[in-house]
Amino acid sequence: METVKHVKVREGMKVSELIKEMSGAGVMGGGRIARGVEIFGEMVKDKQCKVFFGLAGAMVPGGMKQIVIDMLEQGWIDVLVSTGANLTHDLVESLGFNHYKSCGNVSDAELHKKGIDRIYDSFMKNEVYGKMEDFFRKHADEFKGIKTVKEFLWKLGMLMPEKSILGICARRKIPVFCPAISDSGIGLMMWNLLVSGKELDVKEFYDLKEILDIAWTAKKAGVFYVGGGTPKNYIQQAMQFTKGASYGVQITMDRAETGGSSGAPLVEGVSWGKMKEGGKFVDVICDATIALPLIYAGVLEQTQDKNQKA
Amino acid sequence: METVKHVKVREGMKVSELIKEMSGAGVMGGGRIARGVEIFGEMVKDKQCKVFFGLAGAMVPGGMKQIVIDMLEQGWIDVLVSTGANLTHDLVESLGFNHYKSCGNVSDAELHKKGIDRIYDSFMKNEVYGKMEDFFRKHADEFKGIKTVKEFLWKLGMLMPEKSILGICARRKIPVFCPAISDSGIGLMMWNLLVSGKELDVKEFYDLKEILDIAWTAKKAGVFYVGGGTPKNYIQQAMQFTKGASYGVQITMDRAETGGSSGAPLVEGVSWGKMKEGGKFVDVICDATIALPLIYAGVLEQTQDKNQKA
Amino acid sequence: METVKHVKVREGMKVSELIKEMSGAGVMGGGRIARGVEIFGEMVKDKQCKVFFGLAGAMVPGGMKQIVIDMLEQGWIDVLVSTGANLTHDLVESLGFNHYKSCGNVSDAELHKKGIDRIYDSFMKNEVYGKMEDFFRKHADEFKGIKTVKEFLWKLGMLMPEKSILGICARRKIPVFCPAISDSGIGLMMWNLLVSGKELDVKEFYDLKEILDIAWTAKKAGVFYVGGGTPKNYIQQAMQFTKGASYGVQITMDRAETGGSSGAPLVEGVSWGKMKEGGKFVDVICDATIALPLIYAGVLEQTQDKNQKA
Amino acid sequence: METVKHVKVREGMKVSELIKEMSGAGVMGGGRIARGVEIFGEMVKDKQCKVFFGLAGAMVPGGMKQIVIDMLEQGWIDVLVSTGANLTHDLVESLGFNHYKSCGNVSDAELHKKGIDRIYDSFMKNEVYGKMEDFFRKHADEFKGIKTVKEFLWKLGMLMPEKSILGICARRKIPVFCPAISDSGIGLMMWNLLVSGKELDVKEFYDLKEILDIAWTAKKAGVFYVGGGTPKNYIQQAMQFTKGASYGVQITMDRAETGGSSGAPLVEGVSWGKMKEGGKFVDVICDATIALPLIYAGVLEQTQDKNQKA
Repeated sequence: METVKHVKVREGMKVSELIKEMSGAGVMGGGRIARGVEIFGEMVKDKQCKVFFGLAGAMVPGGMKQIVIDMLEQGWIDVLVSTGANLTHDLVESLGFNHYKSCGNVSDAELHKKGIDRIYDSFMKNEVYGKMEDFFRKHADEFKGIKTVKEFLWKLGMLMPEKSILGICARRKIPVFCPAISDSGIGLMMWNLLVSGKELDVKEFYDLKEILDIAWTAKKAGVFYVGGGTPKNYIQQAMQFTKGASYGVQITMDRAETGGSSGAPLVEGVSWGKMKEGGKFVDVICDATIALPLIYAGVLEQTQDKNQKA
Repeated sequence: METVKHVKVREGMKVSELIKEMSGAGVMGGGRIARGVEIFGEMVKDKQCKVFFGLAGAMVPGGMKQIVIDMLEQGWIDVLVSTGANLTHDLVESLGFNHYKSCGNVSDAELHKKGIDRIYDSFMKNEVYGKMEDFFRKHADEFKGIKTVKEFLWKLGMLMPEKSILGICARRKIPVFCPAISDSGIGLMMWNLLVSGKELDVKEFYDLKEILDIAWTAKKAGVFYVGGGTPKNYIQQAMQFTKGASYGVQITMDRAETGGSSGAPLVEGVSWGKMKEGGKFVDVICDATIALPLIYAGVLEQTQDKNQKA
Repeated sequence: METVKHVKVREGMKVSELIKEMSGAGVMGGGRIARGVEIFGEMVKDKQCKVFFGLAGAMVPGGMKQIVIDMLEQGWIDVLVSTGANLTHDLVESLGFNHYKSCGNVSDAELHKKGIDRIYDSFMKNEVYGKMEDFFRKHADEFKGIKTVKEFLWKLGMLMPEKSILGICARRKIPVFCPAISDSGIGLMMWNLLVSGKELDVKEFYDLKEILDIAWTAKKAGVFYVGGGTPKNYIQQAMQFTKGASYGVQITMDRAETGGSSGAPLVEGVSWGKMKEGGKFVDVICDATIALPLIYAGVLEQTQDKNQKA
Repeated sequence: METVKHVKVREGMKVSELIKEMSGAGVMGGGRIARGVEIFGEMVKDKQCKVFFGLAGAMVPGGMKQIVIDMLEQGWIDVLVSTGANLTHDLVESLGFNHYKSCGNVSDAELHKKGIDRIYDSFMKNEVYGKMEDFFRKHADEFKGIKTVKEFLWKLGMLMPEKSILGICARRKIPVFCPAISDSGIGLMMWNLLVSGKELDVKEFYDLKEILDIAWTAKKAGVFYVGGGTPKNYIQQAMQFTKGASYGVQITMDRAETGGSSGAPLVEGVSWGKMKEGGKFVDVICDATIALPLIYAGVLEQTQDKNQKA
């Protein structure tokens, strides 16, 4: 049995050094953060491993966009699956808007009057919708003939600055999926085009061919889940077409006991053949705006030649 | 100020009587259950109100199917939005399979060897996938030409027994949406048809026209969320096209503090115009397999002429 | 493997019938409620079994007092361990005060100005403290010479109406412990006597002799925890002096992953010898103001000759 | 309104720099960590402010002991209130024992056979109890005549190495309280002395005089809660004797909705007069083994002359 070594914090300590201390303790939440760094580090460095990254929750309004962009740029993510909301907020910022920090104790009724939409303690101006409409109307014809959500998102990404989630996916040809794109501001914009008479050819089910092909041909697979929802479930579903993911890290605050997919421990996937027996998995029970920067920082420091991977 | 009256439990008490006691106490979780009964009761009895019902989480493996069917039959649900998983499990049972209770302490690796898929403490035989494949291959041509997920699900429902979620939606023409249908066993089956050369015409974004039309033309709207995920978010999005929902009940165990949609208090929707200022809302923080039967039982007893509504 | 039977709710259904349906489903939260009824029912009917009941959380402000009183009266509880807060709120109501339901959206600053103390959505007038002071000053001399918290609480209970938690414990001589009595309004009142020159002889550690003697001489033991905290931990500690509890039900919303005692699954106690290998345990992850009335109602109906036990 | 700036993680980044990035984002969990650093930093540097520190949860088995010791040594903590469990585990390590990291998937029944007690994924040998008995028997007479838990703990601390929580409190005369000392291994040891005929004079209620005097005479007060339980509640109770705490940081995973003290937002204390209207408070919803090292590291870097304070 290995001893729990107490975490020692020193002045001027680097994040990676703190995580090393957490690893020495090795138990509870801190131990899981350290284990997440270990496992994510391994999957990023394993050249045979395709990394599937699921992005759910209010991660763009929550200030996590840059980290996702950086990971995409470094070639750490081979397949991105996102909620429509995160891609919409990415687009909103690409159109020149910001998200704002909540200020004091304003009621939702007052916010509504002021045209401000609330995402917990992050605010967004409702006028972004008008600007998105202009944007999509201007580019409407460019989406014609596109058959998959992935191609649609790549096209959209090419219209956005490179320093955005979709911008980088599009330019680097990183497959990006969004199984519930209709369930988002972007979806609403497409509905807007539809009702104004534009034709749209994106088809349901077609993206499955692409993600399942990637899964099927991957020598090894790793998964990283920020939150649950469709991004996690869609990747888990694809894992049935691998030999089971060899690596897995999930960050969630959801509970396992209700039986929902979002809170399910990764090991449950072993019964389905989604995760590999004997694979390396950790469930990090933590707010992602705390755990993701920590784990990313830990792996960034740990990997030496990570940039070479892509 | 109203006094907290202590809950008195009597032998042989009816569920509705217990909820009345919880209403007398009126605080914490029990008070919220009682408030949920009040609000859901009002929205079911309000003939001007369209009820949008979101179904997420492992509700079919969790034994909640009959309640959903009963509510559909009674005309309490005007629009159903579900995860693909719940519809898949509904289909699985329609094909003659069951879900099973977990027995003792079997590892996921052992379950995998025995061909058993685990959903927390509910089990399913993996052989259901083979049977679903047979089913869809047999009926493949019947899905040709269908353009929306709703029409697809109605078609599918007609091939299932009436006593199923999709079976009843199809026969009663209750609009049923599934914004992430690809993210489910049913999605996999459609992929299977695709790769075997069948043509599928279901389009992304087209269902939005239908649900937004229903929202737009509704005199009043009410929402009931079992869990969060895309069902909740998709309905919330549609609510922007109403004057804001007048009624809302959500059952969730997710936390608000992470900023995700699933755990967001209903009142947050007021800022967006999704929920109406001054509307009646309650967030029931409870496992849905406890709260849903209670709330349903309370409303069942309370409403006299509910069957007349539909 | 046993099939998950879907919960069927019928009009006019009794609570016990609903729980039977939950038992038929047998999974997730509803299944655990049903299992809780089974196990608590068994321990109440097992004449060899001493039932240790831990009461934490805002159960008196939350409207659960009557249920605790009823269980004490029926002889279902052999040993009560409570937080000081619940006993203080019990006393407050015994002195003629009430708790109130939160009304609308008042800020804590406004409540403070109005002399109202908030316990989530339950309110209490701050003037109760003055009345408690009068009460204790009047009875100050009666507490002299008392050496244990249990004797102190029995004495206090004799000064309160029978229809109170302490009132019934005192009259029925049901051992009642409060390992952190100083950490409560009652504690403050005793400090008040101390600083006004009264002598108090209650000693730390002395109550341990009594509770450990009860544990040691019990043929069998069962535990029921409403919340965690010191009530749970203190009983768990006593269980080391039994052969391990044969039965256990806990209702909690706390998480296991942080490693704290309050959220720890009962089975963890097996490693310590606090719980018996092969014992019957269930962790009900639910708000106690929902789960406790349900479980109590279920057992009330189920047990026929329960009143005879005491 | 202030813009949400996306967190930028750089290679070799210091913890304090990461927290500065989290502060720039300023929302959700990361924003709260940053706010916690700000507030705790202020209270540590405010020379008029007495810092009351509550320590609950499995913090010693969880590897957090060194951080608590370091904060005590730096004079950041003026009053410590702990659960009995943390002090017991501190003593266990002082007697030469360790805690261990969980290894693989061992059942609680097997652990019991091997004499290993489990605290989630931290292990302890049960033989520590025998050694504690020897220790207390040897020193039994030294506890005679002690009237308060604080004096008892100081005496105990003098028998322990300086590099322990109690060791440093004792040598530096930092008031340390434990309102539920009976509810712990140390409590059991005292019971052991009692039943072997030793006299113990520690009295219930007497410690209240000391902590309330400190509160009463404090010019300003700040609170820092690691977990809830009696440490939080006992300090909150003392705050009623200040003008209300000016600063407050709490780290918890407990929910507010159940109404319990552990999960209650700090602002609720404003209604009671425990917290000051307009004070600076933050509720950090996070596993303490993640949040405590982060916040401590952030303040360590931020404060220049912190060591001078004490």
